[in-house]
Amino acid sequence: MTTISHVPIPTSSPDLPPVERRAALPAGFKAGGLAAGIKASGRPDLAVIVTAAGPASAAAVFTPNSLAAAPVRVSRAHLAATSGDPRGGFGLAEAIISTSGSANAATGPSGDADQVEIGHLLARATGAALDRTLHLSTGIIGTRLPLDRVAGGLDALVPRLTDDDAGLLAAAEALRTTDSVTKTATTTALLPGADGSPVRVTISGIAKGVGMIHPQMATMLSIILTDAAAAPGTLWGMLRPTATRTWNQLSVDGDTSTNDTVFLLASGASGAAPIEPGTAGAAVLGAAIEAIARDLARQQAADGEGASTLITTVVTGARDDADARAVARTVVSSSLVKAAVHGRDPNWGRIAGAAGNASLPSRAVLEAAGVSPAEAIRRAGAAVVIDPARFRIWIDGFLVFDGQAGGPADFDRAAARAAMDAPEVVFTLDLGLGSGTGEAFGCDLTETYVIENSEYTT
Amino acid sequence: MTTISHVPIPTSSPDLPPVERRAALPAGFKAGGLAAGIKASGRPDLAVIVTAAGPASAAAVFTPNSLAAAPVRVSRAHLAATSGDPRGGFGLAEAIISTSGSANAATGPSGDADQVEIGHLLARATGAALDRTLHLSTGIIGTRLPLDRVAGGLDALVPRLTDDDAGLLAAAEALRTTDSVTKTATTTALLPGADGSPVRVTISGIAKGVGMIHPQMATMLSIILTDAAAAPGTLWGMLRPTATRTWNQLSVDGDTSTNDTVFLLASGASGAAPIEPGTAGAAVLGAAIEAIARDLARQQAADGEGASTLITTVVTGARDDADARAVARTVVSSSLVKAAVHGRDPNWGRIAGAAGNASLPSRAVLEAAGVSPAEAIRRAGAAVVIDPARFRIWIDGFLVFDGQAGGPADFDRAAARAAMDAPEVVFTLDLGLGSGTGEAFGCDLTETYVIENSEYTT
Repeated sequence: MTTISHVPIPTSSPDLPPVERRAALPAGFKAGGLAAGIKASGRPDLAVIVTAAGPASAAAVFTPNSLAAAPVRVSRAHLAATSGDPRGGFGLAEAIISTSGSANAATGPSGDADQVEIGHLLARATGAALDRTLHLSTGIIGTRLPLDRVAGGLDALVPRLTDDDAGLLAAAEALRTTDSVTKTATTTALLPGADGSPVRVTISGIAKGVGMIHPQMATMLSIILTDAAAAPGTLWGMLRPTATRTWNQLSVDGDTSTNDTVFLLASGASGAAPIEPGTAGAAVLGAAIEAIARDLARQQAADGEGASTLITTVVTGARDDADARAVARTVVSSSLVKAAVHGRDPNWGRIAGAAGNASLPSRAVLEAAGVSPAEAIRRAGAAVVIDPARFRIWIDGFLVFDGQAGGPADFDRAAARAAMDAPEVVFTLDLGLGSGTGEAFGCDLTETYVIENSEYTT
Repeated sequence: MTTISHVPIPTSSPDLPPVERRAALPAGFKAGGLAAGIKASGRPDLAVIVTAAGPASAAAVFTPNSLAAAPVRVSRAHLAATSGDPRGGFGLAEAIISTSGSANAATGPSGDADQVEIGHLLARATGAALDRTLHLSTGIIGTRLPLDRVAGGLDALVPRLTDDDAGLLAAAEALRTTDSVTKTATTTALLPGADGSPVRVTISGIAKGVGMIHPQMATMLSIILTDAAAAPGTLWGMLRPTATRTWNQLSVDGDTSTNDTVFLLASGASGAAPIEPGTAGAAVLGAAIEAIARDLARQQAADGEGASTLITTVVTGARDDADARAVARTVVSSSLVKAAVHGRDPNWGRIAGAAGNASLPSRAVLEAAGVSPAEAIRRAGAAVVIDPARFRIWIDGFLVFDGQAGGPADFDRAAARAAMDAPEVVFTLDLGLGSGTGEAFGCDLTETYVIENSEYTT
């Protein structure tokens, strides 16, 4: 048994710039949103963002779900067309449309035709080229979108798009489905200008997560805009590892939707010089993008269906970052851990048990995360190695398990329980095996989640 | 849109023999159980099974959790010692002990020493060789076992072990923690005797699943006994694929415990000739073992914490069985699907969305399931391929999605909802891609699960 111990919670991701939770529209874009009548509730359900002059560079990360929705497949095809790269992860964009209320997923060839028609409507209303339109949709799986309402909404909305913060806020509001709050984040960065003098660029994101009213909308969407300049492939090179460290470490209920999408668009309107991969500017812009992504992911976790508590798990001392992320993700995804947090129960046995279940993702995901091909082949899907004799666990800074000192630690249960009675609970796990670090974000499991998700669709 | 359609639910695993849910002790064993005072509730918490004359062949499948409990590690070491095979999956056994109330997991070196001492106590009380003892334990993670009570319990229990069904039933009752019912299953099979004439052998299993009272015990344990004869390695060769098709397809809350264990012991006391791998007798005995395993897994799913409904998912038409099992497992593990079943909601969009998330396990698991090494390297952890244009879904026999006919199907929602108001709900998914089949078992997600699992440990 160790002595009672309470240490400061380590700050995760200390290298990211600070973020403000407001909608600040970067230069070079216009945005807006309104209620087009897709949702029966009459709430805003149609958002449009366009570029002010010519195409923006665009990058995207999409759901890996095998039954990806029509808007996902259309967007991927358009990016492939404008870049010539068949992976469909980057290209050019002049307009983004987001509809809420129907996911347009599992709707068959008719749903695909609907989405193509929406592309034509958007192109006609905005003047964008068809293959420079990007599409997002969220809502019930298996229902069709009402094309007449989308068309009417576009006619009303496009002339009213504005190049100010109010426009971006309106778009963020129209992105929401069951979200209880509008999710926005903004930061700035100094980049070299075309003449070498520093230029301040803005990076802003909007997102929807999962709320608690309508049960089918376990869908997460996000758009990040910047007035920095970068080629589409460069943007993609920054967005993919960012998604690996942020959104791919977010779990509300373990279900990956058919519609999950993140778009990153760079207008170049700030006058900053184009970012080249591997430069100091790329590092600065990448950190700003990751700061936005991380903050939006945390907002989404905190607003998870029925959730009352954000769970952050920080893992240090792993063999590498992939191991650390796998352990962190498994802990925040455990139903037993999530229920214990709901009960303010410092039940470290469940954290240990969950950590012991961590397994690595597929070879492709490991390689994308920087693991060598040979190592990825060896480890794909395998259990993460944890040595119980080196493993340590803290709950909100209370050392609860210390494998290096024999196992269970004495700690002040009442104090730990009091610390857990907060909007955020932090678990820190040190594997004691290497220098790999990672974090993950989740939420508690509540009766409200079950009640809201067991109501009838009709 | 297709016409309204209701087809009979396909019977899964049609080749398995029928099973009775009672405790029938095979010849060559003695068993019993009692309350030793490990549990504060005073319920039975100590079970012992011994062989009547000399060692039985034994095989085991253990939890893959990296923080495997002391009883798991001791059992594995004993099997490795008696077989000389370092994998620790098979060997010889003369006595099994099961304790309930404390998992003896994450208890450090002191917990390991406790478990070794329990082995000495069991060996002394039963006359078994130390390395022919097998250990099971279940309960709260991170608490120590009270050795004095285990010692006292063994002194009282061992002289009272009986070679009748009542003894096995008492052992099954002592295995329980939060289970609401005692779980037993038995069947018989005809095997060639030593002289070639048929001999009837008995195969019986007992198990514990997860109940709803004590929140830390998400632990599953099982013991299968038979009076058939087979070498330890032969038994292991039958048990591993059986576990792949049954227990590895069972999910209550997605958390794999630190203590999960299945033991299979063959006494040979029936007089049947030893089973050789690849023979007709091996097929008959293997089917009987799988029938027991499958039925116990279904009993465990139906008695999941807070559960009111057993969810069975049958997948056909997959590229191979590994794909089919992955899809079936993902569907029964989805929180959104589980909550929809609780609400009697024929919400097929969630089934489709969950199926689309299916991914394959690690290379090692794929190879154990019969996938070639080259194919396992390629597919480990990768998404299962589903073609929405070939995919079909039935809920309790109602065709709800027919990708071959354009997507969403017309169906009688009221009738489907009425059919779901039953102790078991069956989802049938045909991928239309090959001849692979698989099934999985789960339960609905209820408010009770959340409430019981968010109570304080203290």
